[in-house]
Amino acid sequence: MNADTPGYPGSPELELAEPFLLEWLASVGLDVEYVRAEGNTLYYRDADGGEVPVVDYAGGYGSLMLGHNNPEIIALAKSLLDGGVPVHAQFSRHPYANQVAGALNTILQRELGTTDAYSAIFANTGAEAIEAAIKHAELDRRMRMDELAAPIAGHLEAARAALLGGEASLSGEVLGALGFSATERVDLAAFEDLAAEITRRNDAVRQRPPVFLTLEGSFHGKLMGSVQLTHNEGYRAPFSALAAQARFIPRDRPEAIKEVVESERAELFDVVVEGGAIVVVRREAPVICAFVLEPIQGEGGINVITREFAAEVQRVTAEIDCPVVLDEVQSGMGRSGAFLASSLVGLRGDYYALAKSLGGGIAKSSVMLVRRDRYRKEFELVHSSTFAKDAFSCFVALKVLELMEAEDGRVYRLAAERGAALRAMFESVRADFPDVVADIRGEGLMLGFEFSDQSEAASAAIRDNAGFFGYVVAGYLLREHRIRTFPTASAAHTLRFEPSVYLSDAEIAQLEVGLRDVCGILREQDGERLVGAGA
Amino acid sequence: MNADTPGYPGSPELELAEPFLLEWLASVGLDVEYVRAEGNTLYYRDADGGEVPVVDYAGGYGSLMLGHNNPEIIALAKSLLDGGVPVHAQFSRHPYANQVAGALNTILQRELGTTDAYSAIFANTGAEAIEAAIKHAELDRRMRMDELAAPIAGHLEAARAALLGGEASLSGEVLGALGFSATERVDLAAFEDLAAEITRRNDAVRQRPPVFLTLEGSFHGKLMGSVQLTHNEGYRAPFSALAAQARFIPRDRPEAIKEVVESERAELFDVVVEGGAIVVVRREAPVICAFVLEPIQGEGGINVITREFAAEVQRVTAEIDCPVVLDEVQSGMGRSGAFLASSLVGLRGDYYALAKSLGGGIAKSSVMLVRRDRYRKEFELVHSSTFAKDAFSCFVALKVLELMEAEDGRVYRLAAERGAALRAMFESVRADFPDVVADIRGEGLMLGFEFSDQSEAASAAIRDNAGFFGYVVAGYLLREHRIRTFPTASAAHTLRFEPSVYLSDAEIAQLEVGLRDVCGILREQDGERLVGAGA
Repeated sequence: MNADTPGYPGSPELELAEPFLLEWLASVGLDVEYVRAEGNTLYYRDADGGEVPVVDYAGGYGSLMLGHNNPEIIALAKSLLDGGVPVHAQFSRHPYANQVAGALNTILQRELGTTDAYSAIFANTGAEAIEAAIKHAELDRRMRMDELAAPIAGHLEAARAALLGGEASLSGEVLGALGFSATERVDLAAFEDLAAEITRRNDAVRQRPPVFLTLEGSFHGKLMGSVQLTHNEGYRAPFSALAAQARFIPRDRPEAIKEVVESERAELFDVVVEGGAIVVVRREAPVICAFVLEPIQGEGGINVITREFAAEVQRVTAEIDCPVVLDEVQSGMGRSGAFLASSLVGLRGDYYALAKSLGGGIAKSSVMLVRRDRYRKEFELVHSSTFAKDAFSCFVALKVLELMEAEDGRVYRLAAERGAALRAMFESVRADFPDVVADIRGEGLMLGFEFSDQSEAASAAIRDNAGFFGYVVAGYLLREHRIRTFPTASAAHTLRFEPSVYLSDAEIAQLEVGLRDVCGILREQDGERLVGAGA
Repeated sequence: MNADTPGYPGSPELELAEPFLLEWLASVGLDVEYVRAEGNTLYYRDADGGEVPVVDYAGGYGSLMLGHNNPEIIALAKSLLDGGVPVHAQFSRHPYANQVAGALNTILQRELGTTDAYSAIFANTGAEAIEAAIKHAELDRRMRMDELAAPIAGHLEAARAALLGGEASLSGEVLGALGFSATERVDLAAFEDLAAEITRRNDAVRQRPPVFLTLEGSFHGKLMGSVQLTHNEGYRAPFSALAAQARFIPRDRPEAIKEVVESERAELFDVVVEGGAIVVVRREAPVICAFVLEPIQGEGGINVITREFAAEVQRVTAEIDCPVVLDEVQSGMGRSGAFLASSLVGLRGDYYALAKSLGGGIAKSSVMLVRRDRYRKEFELVHSSTFAKDAFSCFVALKVLELMEAEDGRVYRLAAERGAALRAMFESVRADFPDVVADIRGEGLMLGFEFSDQSEAASAAIRDNAGFFGYVVAGYLLREHRIRTFPTASAAHTLRFEPSVYLSDAEIAQLEVGLRDVCGILREQDGERLVGAGA
């Protein structure tokens, strides 16, 4: 089926769906139309109408753990459609959603070695799942703040009554600790000054906007709220006035976590009577809403969080009771060789966001999991989505999880084993081209291949394209080697590789030829050949 | 396929997917599991395993203009799956997306009587389309602000040079108009004071957060940003610190539009030389980012914007060059009898958001359209979504639009005609029960049936449930009459009716029996019968 299929309107004369993007894709030779997809292969048609196969290492940006149009998933989808699956049955009993949640819990509990259960809120895309997590964390934060503040008002009243009744006294020391210089004034007026000042400070803390912690190089989506957690300035800065801002922490400096937290944390003052004395107790106020992070950064350049960094995240967030939201949208669903990439570095989340391969390559679904001791049931009444939690997506997700878990987790083992084979090839290329290959990173089937910076390249054609170097290479690999890959969005010298677990040795060999060709071009600075007719 | 299908994990012991919501649904008798869907009918199983048909007036909250599992759409979907449709082919040529955009343009241009073209940005859900529209409007607003501010800096330099060169003079009048009292000081120092003051004011205006206008009763989604445009406090208030806030305008007071705009609008000061004099020109600053509204409010209670209100929206926004974002997510796609409900009241949008029925009842897709003279091509490089613009959803959308446009728009005529038949039945019920039916509202197949307020009802069972009265009635209609409907989210006394265009006279008759039954119960205040065993 394509633009010429009878019964469909012809293409409009004007390009109306992102014409500028298309021009840009054309400029690097990436403007092919794919007409069919199967396994790791996308097909376009050549001038004679023949299908040309392309090995797909982009893998739907991580959505195709089980390949394009996996036969078992397609068979299920067709049987669902044949059977009249009730896609639109909002506000009714959805046992299939509960089954997905149950299956995910079984996997998480095994992998995390815990009996903790996780509640599930369904959404449609990765960004929606992240926003649901943030909304839940904010609802929880405000409820915790209210729960903390409620007794404080009562305690203040009780202290006033105790002072009036002569059962408690106020010392100058207490006043001094809060910055009142007149330590002689320990009468009722002094108490009222203290009460007013404490109330003012507490109100100010309660009204502070929530703080989000995330990492430099982070990518958490491009919706109004989630884009503020995405580090890339090009994506984020134009929209900075639309939503709450985040603090970005460098991932090579674990000690920076503590520094940022110390600069943001705040306390509520609680006036209590203790053994006849009025004292002020400081209580940690939940002003930091969540620490949101990817265990392996996708768009940021395939950067794996270290075990040391993960431990520091865990330590600091535990100290201030700040929830950790693990964005496993790209790294999860088995891609790393484990179901959750975070489990490889011992990082535990209070929340998990999953999407991409959860849709099996054909459905659009995502889920946000919250550990039950953090869960707020009130959230269910204030958050929903017409398209979410539908029977079609849920049954597809169940099939995906069934396929992953089959044969005692063969898919996870394949991800690790195929990933190792791919990585070994990368290392052999690097060994032969240490001058042009800067780094190889990642886990399982989420690998990054970083070229050395070309902004000072001898070839003008290469130098002038250094800003979007990875796209030029992607265009070359597509044209000359029938390989589909892209750079990571925010690290244009790093190509990403996220194929399905059905990656064959022949496909790895085909990629090797392409990469060695590109490396040779860079070594020889044969810019004309790389840029070719496309640019 | 259900929870007992072999090969799927059993339901977990704990309810993990929104257990509180399920309890709540159970309390009003809405916790049935639908197992099959076709046309206007959803089926659940009774205790003996037999299918029980339910007439679906909820219609997937407006997603089922063409019914559940429309045979032509299902046939297409299966053929796409059989043919290996390339669902995940991001960053390539998507002629099918362009065809959807073209088909939508053909329809819009006909209905609006214009040759204006609209660019299309695809998303996955209604809320995502709204957020894309807001993001685009904000990008455009900031670019317009920068375009406005850029020459102002140059003009100030030129004026200073003219003053120094004796080619222009500064009058006390000009200074006085800006609040400088020392009208005698018209020297260079006075100019520098003026320049500093103007720069300070201009910077303050440029840094103001964007203002959004929307309506009381509005619903624009529940993501982090879009939920701020949703009037219902229960949905919005817990998350108010997460994103930019909106001003809500009462829809029965068109004059309030101007009042709110006057209270928010701002100007940039431009110092220019005119005929030897330095004068200050005031230029409208784009501080109001967008006016976002539904032509027929869905969740707000099926409230139709009047022609008078629409005209005032148009007049005031034109005056300050503020874009109008028409949220046609629920009202659009032909539901009102026109493709766009806004066209019925002569309201023109700079942006349109469409979703729901665009997915044909099985896919998840949405689109945001921007009139090309407002369009910023830069948006294409900063906004994207893994799941959006995919071949499967686009081909389904093309089929939906083909079916709608067939036979010279028979679907739109059916929506108007079937809607009129449904409304006539409502009016006959109202005529017989003027004491319990408060209002009937809507257009086409988007109708609201409002009961009189029951918070002072004689029956305690009814009175005590007045806060979620519509859900109790929905439970009763389901149990006793096999009718599926819900109240609108923010107007709990109004039932919504959004069936497909294939609504039959028999289905209308079945609903009539149910509504007359409920009206009789209310008249007799037979609360026990209404609340029944469910609550």
